[in-house]
Amino acid sequence: MRLRPRNILSVLALSVSAAAILAQSNQKETDAILAADAAWMKVYHAKDLDKSLAFCAEDASMLVPSAPIATGKEAVGKLIAYDFSVNGDLTWHANKVGVARSGDLGYSSGIYEDTYQNAAGKTVHDTGKYLTIWKKQADGSWKVLFDMSNSDLPPA
Amino acid sequence: MRLRPRNILSVLALSVSAAAILAQSNQKETDAILAADAAWMKVYHAKDLDKSLAFCAEDASMLVPSAPIATGKEAVGKLIAYDFSVNGDLTWHANKVGVARSGDLGYSSGIYEDTYQNAAGKTVHDTGKYLTIWKKQADGSWKVLFDMSNSDLPPA
Repeated sequence: MRLRPRNILSVLALSVSAAAILAQSNQKETDAILAADAAWMKVYHAKDLDKSLAFCAEDASMLVPSAPIATGKEAVGKLIAYDFSVNGDLTWHANKVGVARSGDLGYSSGIYEDTYQNAAGKTVHDTGKYLTIWKKQADGSWKVLFDMSNSDLPPA
Repeated sequence: MRLRPRNILSVLALSVSAAAILAQSNQKETDAILAADAAWMKVYHAKDLDKSLAFCAEDASMLVPSAPIATGKEAVGKLIAYDFSVNGDLTWHANKVGVARSGDLGYSSGIYEDTYQNAAGKTVHDTGKYLTIWKKQADGSWKVLFDMSNSDLPPA
């Protein structure tokens, strides 16, 4: 079929609309990931284990320094509980966010701050960074599939 | 329109085909990400800076312990060059891989091993883990958008 000008314009208009919808959809999803990132921080900062774990997918993996990879709710729950026992007033905020075109996989990344007492009783002001991969669930919520962090500080 | 049985079967067949094509496509993409992960390791292990940097997207970020986030080819190049000067025989392999339905964003994760001399001249056998986010480029290649690692070893 040869496209007549009006048809070409329709196709172009459709493509532009599709791109606009996709951009809007991606903006909606990156906003949702940033909101999930911030909401997770809030319950994590409050050291609420159940609510913190509820942000993790069933097969979530946490990759924290000085421990092997923890995968699955039980292992991740133990790791978070341990983290709550040693961290002081952990906060973080994202400075990068992205999502796949299909809106089922995304990421957030940023920096954290924490002030805590180390094993020798010394107050440590720690700063570091994190990378979180989010997976959209069947119910439309975004949950943590991978979460990783490390410190900017030189080795002790 | 009410669907007659034959039409329902056609729709089902079409859905099954679409799912099969999607699964094949995702398998193809996860294979491509695993291949990129292994190929990157090969040139990184050989401490080839140009080839290692060629695996990184223009806006790639590296999040390594004891340093702030490095973003962009120049900063990432400096970080890799420094890493080459201190690591010994770094190797890694992926044990997890995934890709978005749209095939434009994916990840690999796994473990690394490295034996090196530390600042005090002591030989350290380090084991740790990594998380890499891959972004498909306009030319169809997969490049590193984020790469992060940390050690399983207790603090020094």
